[in-house]
Amino acid sequence: MIAQALFGPVQDDMELVEAVIDRIRDVEYAPLARMLTHVLGAGGKRMRPALALLSGSFATYDLDLLVPLAASVEVLHTASLVHDDVIDGSPTRRGRATANALFNNAPSVMLGDLMFAHASELIARTGNIRVIRMFSHTLMRMTTGELDQDLSAFDVSKRIGDYLRRIGGKTASLIEAACEGGAIVSEAPEPWIDALRDYGFNLGMAFQIVDDILDFTGDEATLGKPAGSDLREGTLTLPSLYVLEDDPSPTNPVRRLFAAQRNREQRLAEAMSCVLAGDAIPRARGMADEFGDRARAALTSLPDTDGRHTLERLIGYVLERNS
Amino acid sequence: MIAQALFGPVQDDMELVEAVIDRIRDVEYAPLARMLTHVLGAGGKRMRPALALLSGSFATYDLDLLVPLAASVEVLHTASLVHDDVIDGSPTRRGRATANALFNNAPSVMLGDLMFAHASELIARTGNIRVIRMFSHTLMRMTTGELDQDLSAFDVSKRIGDYLRRIGGKTASLIEAACEGGAIVSEAPEPWIDALRDYGFNLGMAFQIVDDILDFTGDEATLGKPAGSDLREGTLTLPSLYVLEDDPSPTNPVRRLFAAQRNREQRLAEAMSCVLAGDAIPRARGMADEFGDRARAALTSLPDTDGRHTLERLIGYVLERNS
Repeated sequence: MIAQALFGPVQDDMELVEAVIDRIRDVEYAPLARMLTHVLGAGGKRMRPALALLSGSFATYDLDLLVPLAASVEVLHTASLVHDDVIDGSPTRRGRATANALFNNAPSVMLGDLMFAHASELIARTGNIRVIRMFSHTLMRMTTGELDQDLSAFDVSKRIGDYLRRIGGKTASLIEAACEGGAIVSEAPEPWIDALRDYGFNLGMAFQIVDDILDFTGDEATLGKPAGSDLREGTLTLPSLYVLEDDPSPTNPVRRLFAAQRNREQRLAEAMSCVLAGDAIPRARGMADEFGDRARAALTSLPDTDGRHTLERLIGYVLERNS
Repeated sequence: MIAQALFGPVQDDMELVEAVIDRIRDVEYAPLARMLTHVLGAGGKRMRPALALLSGSFATYDLDLLVPLAASVEVLHTASLVHDDVIDGSPTRRGRATANALFNNAPSVMLGDLMFAHASELIARTGNIRVIRMFSHTLMRMTTGELDQDLSAFDVSKRIGDYLRRIGGKTASLIEAACEGGAIVSEAPEPWIDALRDYGFNLGMAFQIVDDILDFTGDEATLGKPAGSDLREGTLTLPSLYVLEDDPSPTNPVRRLFAAQRNREQRLAEAMSCVLAGDAIPRARGMADEFGDRARAALTSLPDTDGRHTLERLIGYVLERNS
């Protein structure tokens, strides 16, 4: 979990969110309880629910609505990770075995579905049709983004525009929904709702770009999974796209990796070195900073509160994190 | 599709439901459009959406609410089939290749998720919080029932009570939700809502028991998949549970099949013969008839309309179908 101090005025209320998430694991059937406990207690940073509460702090801060919203966002996020890990066949996440590794693929698909069901039950508790509709659109954007990534694996014709669209759906949409949802259920005025949606989207974009950079620059100890996972799975992210864009020749190491029928580990090492040697990482970092700047700019129209300062600090956290 | 005449007064309006479902396939990304077209056009009987419209015909028959509800039920049903087929590794359904067989498991998981997202978007269009909450509970019951089936495969300690609970979640809950949902959005009085919920649940139980009988008595041509699929996957259903209950000895052919390390096809043939030879099938049919009677009894408190007569006829269709 992020150092509690980062969540500022809402840090104590995060315990209420945790309690709601805990109750989901409280099922009679022991094998299911074990699966739920494993994935819901998996050391998530709980950034998304904190964003929902913080975004609800500018108008009517009603915990009866904000806590289910925040819990719903986190459960939906976790459900999507469970399915992503099945799809990618990932053995570990955050340094722990994934659900598919521990319980096999089939029950993990259903576990994810059950958590989607809980997420929709939680969002329905807000009783707010606008938020409920927003959530179903978010789920569509998330799955379309993830499908896009999966169907375009090993496709070197993909461009930076495709990448930004994909991470907008896969990651930024839910962070946006956490912020917009908090603003809506607290009955903030429309310009504040717009500002918080805008903040959330740009923060989410910065978050995913940093994540994609860390897959090159991090190590297994801090990442909780081997570095280079994206290239290994055939997923082009911003740094490798810069490398492809700068050198369209067939000898480009990323292109050679994707075309390789054998010696794939050696080709992967060459592609990783090439990405790390050039200016791709600093350029990607520059793009993340730019989204961070946009997120910061979005906040200027909000009242100058503790909540706003906390949202500002979270941008720095997202940009500087190393795990 | 069921002969249109079976849907009585709502048969023309089913085209509106079909049009809403069609629009889901209308996406820009060609591979995704192909997947959606394959699963959404897969010759479903459309029984569930017809039940939603029929159940909405007793009070305010408002198509602006009933059509999205009906489409949501069908899309949710199809999404759950896509995931079930991934989980069971089924190559065919209704005589056609499954999504997982055609497009692989990973995209099929995401395809199911996208359809869950569409189902929740459609249900949100009703603007009715009570129906939305009911739906999220239905999704929980469905996934818990399916998880239960998956986690208890090859477990001969399962009893008839477990089976009824499991099919109540896996199948009857959504048919119940279609009927209850139609009653709620049409603003039917509470006793009618109760009656239609009761009808839907019992019809759904009868439907699944008949389905499970057909897995023994049907052939590949009518079933669209090989007979004996349940026993092959380790799923005990009502007929095989009767056989286990009647003969608890270790030589029981069903027990021997589940314990078999090899000669599994021969053991399967023996278990199938044993189920077909005794009174397990007629007893299971008797149980299906009993649920049919309960469904019929539930309708007696409703006004005597064309809609009610159609619901009555559908019980006969469910009990007598052979595919």
